[in-house]
Amino acid sequence: MKLNNFLNPKYIAVIGASSKPGKVGRIIFDNIISSKKAGVFPINHQEKKVAGHKAFSSIEDLELKDWKNLLVVIAIPAKFVLKEVEKCARLGVKDIIIVSAGFKEIGGEGEKLEKEIADLAKDEGLNVLGPNCLGMINGGKSLNITFSDYSLKSDIKRKHNIAFLSQSGAIGSYVLDFLKNKNIALSYFLSLGNKAGLNENDFLDYLYKDKKTDLIILYLEEISQGPRFVEIVSRISKIKPVAVLKAGRSPWGEKMAMSHTGSLAGSHEVALAALKRSGAIILENITQINNLMRLIKGPVKEVEGHLAIISNAGGMAVLASDEAFEKKLSLAKFSDKTVAKLKQDSIKFIDFKNPLDILGDADAKRYERALDIVLSDKKVSSVLALLTPQSMTEDSKTAEAISRLARKYPDKIVTTCFLGSAGVASGKKVLAKNLIANFDSPEEAIDVLSKLSNYLDTRKELKVFKSFSLEEKSSSLRVLDYIDSFRVLKGAGINVASARKLEKKTLDKMKYPIVIKFTGPDFLHKFDKQAVFLNVENKQSARKILDIFDGMLKEGKISSDNVPVFQSQLRKKTELILGFKRDLVFGPVVLLGFGGTYAELYNDTVIEIADLDRRRVQEMIKSLKCYPVLNGFRGQKKANMSLLVDTILNFSKLVRENKDILELDINPLFVDDKKVVAVDVRIIMKK
Amino acid sequence: MKLNNFLNPKYIAVIGASSKPGKVGRIIFDNIISSKKAGVFPINHQEKKVAGHKAFSSIEDLELKDWKNLLVVIAIPAKFVLKEVEKCARLGVKDIIIVSAGFKEIGGEGEKLEKEIADLAKDEGLNVLGPNCLGMINGGKSLNITFSDYSLKSDIKRKHNIAFLSQSGAIGSYVLDFLKNKNIALSYFLSLGNKAGLNENDFLDYLYKDKKTDLIILYLEEISQGPRFVEIVSRISKIKPVAVLKAGRSPWGEKMAMSHTGSLAGSHEVALAALKRSGAIILENITQINNLMRLIKGPVKEVEGHLAIISNAGGMAVLASDEAFEKKLSLAKFSDKTVAKLKQDSIKFIDFKNPLDILGDADAKRYERALDIVLSDKKVSSVLALLTPQSMTEDSKTAEAISRLARKYPDKIVTTCFLGSAGVASGKKVLAKNLIANFDSPEEAIDVLSKLSNYLDTRKELKVFKSFSLEEKSSSLRVLDYIDSFRVLKGAGINVASARKLEKKTLDKMKYPIVIKFTGPDFLHKFDKQAVFLNVENKQSARKILDIFDGMLKEGKISSDNVPVFQSQLRKKTELILGFKRDLVFGPVVLLGFGGTYAELYNDTVIEIADLDRRRVQEMIKSLKCYPVLNGFRGQKKANMSLLVDTILNFSKLVRENKDILELDINPLFVDDKKVVAVDVRIIMKK
Repeated sequence: MKLNNFLNPKYIAVIGASSKPGKVGRIIFDNIISSKKAGVFPINHQEKKVAGHKAFSSIEDLELKDWKNLLVVIAIPAKFVLKEVEKCARLGVKDIIIVSAGFKEIGGEGEKLEKEIADLAKDEGLNVLGPNCLGMINGGKSLNITFSDYSLKSDIKRKHNIAFLSQSGAIGSYVLDFLKNKNIALSYFLSLGNKAGLNENDFLDYLYKDKKTDLIILYLEEISQGPRFVEIVSRISKIKPVAVLKAGRSPWGEKMAMSHTGSLAGSHEVALAALKRSGAIILENITQINNLMRLIKGPVKEVEGHLAIISNAGGMAVLASDEAFEKKLSLAKFSDKTVAKLKQDSIKFIDFKNPLDILGDADAKRYERALDIVLSDKKVSSVLALLTPQSMTEDSKTAEAISRLARKYPDKIVTTCFLGSAGVASGKKVLAKNLIANFDSPEEAIDVLSKLSNYLDTRKELKVFKSFSLEEKSSSLRVLDYIDSFRVLKGAGINVASARKLEKKTLDKMKYPIVIKFTGPDFLHKFDKQAVFLNVENKQSARKILDIFDGMLKEGKISSDNVPVFQSQLRKKTELILGFKRDLVFGPVVLLGFGGTYAELYNDTVIEIADLDRRRVQEMIKSLKCYPVLNGFRGQKKANMSLLVDTILNFSKLVRENKDILELDINPLFVDDKKVVAVDVRIIMKK
Repeated sequence: MKLNNFLNPKYIAVIGASSKPGKVGRIIFDNIISSKKAGVFPINHQEKKVAGHKAFSSIEDLELKDWKNLLVVIAIPAKFVLKEVEKCARLGVKDIIIVSAGFKEIGGEGEKLEKEIADLAKDEGLNVLGPNCLGMINGGKSLNITFSDYSLKSDIKRKHNIAFLSQSGAIGSYVLDFLKNKNIALSYFLSLGNKAGLNENDFLDYLYKDKKTDLIILYLEEISQGPRFVEIVSRISKIKPVAVLKAGRSPWGEKMAMSHTGSLAGSHEVALAALKRSGAIILENITQINNLMRLIKGPVKEVEGHLAIISNAGGMAVLASDEAFEKKLSLAKFSDKTVAKLKQDSIKFIDFKNPLDILGDADAKRYERALDIVLSDKKVSSVLALLTPQSMTEDSKTAEAISRLARKYPDKIVTTCFLGSAGVASGKKVLAKNLIANFDSPEEAIDVLSKLSNYLDTRKELKVFKSFSLEEKSSSLRVLDYIDSFRVLKGAGINVASARKLEKKTLDKMKYPIVIKFTGPDFLHKFDKQAVFLNVENKQSARKILDIFDGMLKEGKISSDNVPVFQSQLRKKTELILGFKRDLVFGPVVLLGFGGTYAELYNDTVIEIADLDRRRVQEMIKSLKCYPVLNGFRGQKKANMSLLVDTILNFSKLVRENKDILELDINPLFVDDKKVVAVDVRIIMKK
């Protein structure tokens, strides 16, 4: 999908542009003409002139040579929209923004209308943004095609380097309004609306190569085309950060699609796993959107070292370090040279450690010298400079000093937190002028710095995801035969405690103790509690159990499709759970968890998108709280980690390559220093 | 301690008041005279006049009838301070603020000086605030005795209803600065500094009965006199909220005092348990200080019902509900009447549920009608009204409407979150004028509302704590004999798996299987791994084990103080851990946790101050993640809850009443449907 003309149109027609000020179509029209970057045509079949421009009664009346250079904005009642889109298709117009509401979001007739537009767009290859959206802004060109009065300041100092895509118009208009008094500018704003045609992935594809854009932020309520999204975001994340605020993490926010087994949690958890896989920065709230916009001023480069905190307020430094600890953001250990230099300055600091408290009576000069020394330390990659207004505080001068040092150390990240209102107001102005990111509280600063640090760590190891087509949801399922299920695992290179059919004639030859299980359709739910017999010690006991089975068969309680099977009785070992399901949005996902009786209480599980490799499997295992148990807890022998990794990789390969497997649970998977064995299994297949 | 004159002094002398503007003593002096509420005397032995007032060369030169009506502020270099305090003591002055720094915080000589002042204050019964503090403000009297330029606005609309106590001067000055442009006023500001004399508890005692103060906020780096603090805060919390930001939750913030067993975590965890016991609102960051100040405008009353969220922005409502779910803040379910009324209004809402999305094109009128209907619902106790600037949004008018409704429903909590900058600026001004608490983001609003809701829930059941004197830390310890340890538990009414001495002559008479343990001084650490023999099935095995013991004795590896003991072998049951230690600050604390092999991985424990009652023990048990195991998990029998509660209560009583017990761990405590049995025990006593 080519979006060059869509985002940089030569001509724009606004259907619904009106001479009445305040009408949506008119506001959009006014916003466009104020940019003077494109030829603009008001389309209004009742009016001759709109805001001094000659109005056309239909787009068909425009005399254009190449309709592909035209972007059509539609801002008329929903019921008239389809007809206009059809006109566009006939004329060869490719790029359309439908601002009008009254479609899928109101259900019924609106939903039907939207479907027709979506189908038309698909058939004709139209780029349709919306409906039910605010429109689009191209910040670099000062082109505002929305009905928001986002003012494109000419005196803005920062380059237009942030693309913001929002599925919610309201959150879009909030961000545009928030940006008004800030020294932050958008490269693009894209209000996605109902996503009938274009969705986030189409724009992400474009933004991947867009050199203007250093940071992409998305607010999404649902992610479109999961695998494609993960692919494109993982590709972009290798070069610039993509931050996603995905709403609906609570059942109130979204009814969670719970899997019927309960072993894999709802789709939001899968969405988080997908975001993690894609290398995206995962946001939780709108404050983080604001703070990330402040922080990312240019291309995000690797920086060696860790964070230093410097403060004229001990209490604030303590609170910042508490927060850093909680967010797992490492603090730099000052080099001996740094400590020596700080001491040489003979300021009576209480301590020369990071966080560095330069005391309440610090003036700008002391602040500058201490900060200079800290920034010169190779172990320091970034600085958070805290300042509260105290009697000796020179907020403006300190802000000037910090700005000078930020220029002196261009490869380090210099951020501030000037705390208070009147007492630091002029300092804050100086910081803003010098494009220093200043945050409202130490916890917000630490929070956003930890997001960035985490992104940089992730990026190093990130591999580009390979997209694929999602399977249609299969309505017809079957549970695979128990003995066959083990065969499937074995065929995939997974070590199993094989199950064989239990027969009277073989009772003599077996090595006891054994486990007997009744398997088959009638034992899936109906009799599941009476279907497993552990520690069967001898022939006599085994025969009795077989008699129970035969009895049920004779009485017609169960059908002849059921089979009694046996396995060797294994000694109890560390138990894991290995699960698989196909998520409706993201496809195959794998769950690894600690098993055993109390597993579900502590919910010690990790979910990953199924394209696993060795490194990611190792991380999965290490992320479990029970990891110490596998790693030689309390003098136990270490689990055979290499075999465990192989097993999970084989599992992942199996479920990805066999499209007929819909769900697969190994529970328990026994693990010790020698072996990894699948002891029980359940496979759900397409019929 | 009487603080009436301290907080409302008739006369104030400022030692160190100077004619040089900018000097700390001078700033304080200027701040005092600008309030014109007290007779002020500059004390300066080099100058005749200070700011037009006659200066005295020493406080002894003042001609006062009753020195008890004088408050002396000391702002001179540290080395001269003691002499002035001595003068005060001689003259009968009781109330002193020492602003000067250079004491305990710099160690060495400073620490010694402070000790002398502290001793003098104690001996003479002086009220000394500081040293190393900002001073004090009495907001209601517009009396500012600090060197901060907190302006006591005369046009402030809200009453001076918040007391703020800060151990950090910097955080104090930040809050004072933050308040400057807000419609929030302090009843008292108290900068605690080094707490050489007065500490938070002295002021809390006073504020308990202070009718002006509706909310008390403390920033503390260490809590003074733990038990007294818990008593007074629990007393106050019954009538008004006390919110505490306790710094040092990370090892970076404070080196944690880890117990040597690791079974009880560091003192910060105990501090949190103490704050919980006291009914305080526990804060994590300074943003919460600001937001709580906005929210609490008067006496905090009970309100029936739950929160309603109303929004012109669906996305924001989703984010707010996500946050409410995470913070466990319940949303009200609208009554049928409310839903009917909303429907009657025939606005095309997508849904009539809470959170209520009144759509992006909502004008002030629609906002008002919907909010009125919601507020009239008895199930609604509080409202969060979200607004983002969209094309049809009327921010000022909507703010007026919300303000009207807040007056119409005075018993309900009406808060807002107007999101954006220019687009909601005038609306925000209207809200401020009408004293509506407006928050910067949905997550901040939900966060502070959940704190308040949680406080109100806690208050209902809160009992006043009874203070006590802390024991001196005992340097000399001993481990109590194993058999005696069980006797101690038994004597306290705790069911035990009694241990008896194992002797050759009784081997025949015993009921096997048994457990054999080698106990005594040499088995505490040296041979601890070879000291327990489970499942000893018969006489022969028991004799062999006894031979091992005798062998060690003969070879001189162990002394004759050691004893082999036996217990009946019990069947494995649900295992809990019950622990006790004496915290240096808060005294006896009890830990309850899930036991067994993997317990420490999941850290499923709860710590409580040891004055337990039935209700609190029940809550402790229910707060464990393993609670379902006790409550009939997976068809198991329910644990005998009544016996378990009795056991924990008896345990708590035992350790509180026996001051010689320093630590006590029962691990495991076996629990099933019939019994609760202490299976293993370790008691550490004063020597």
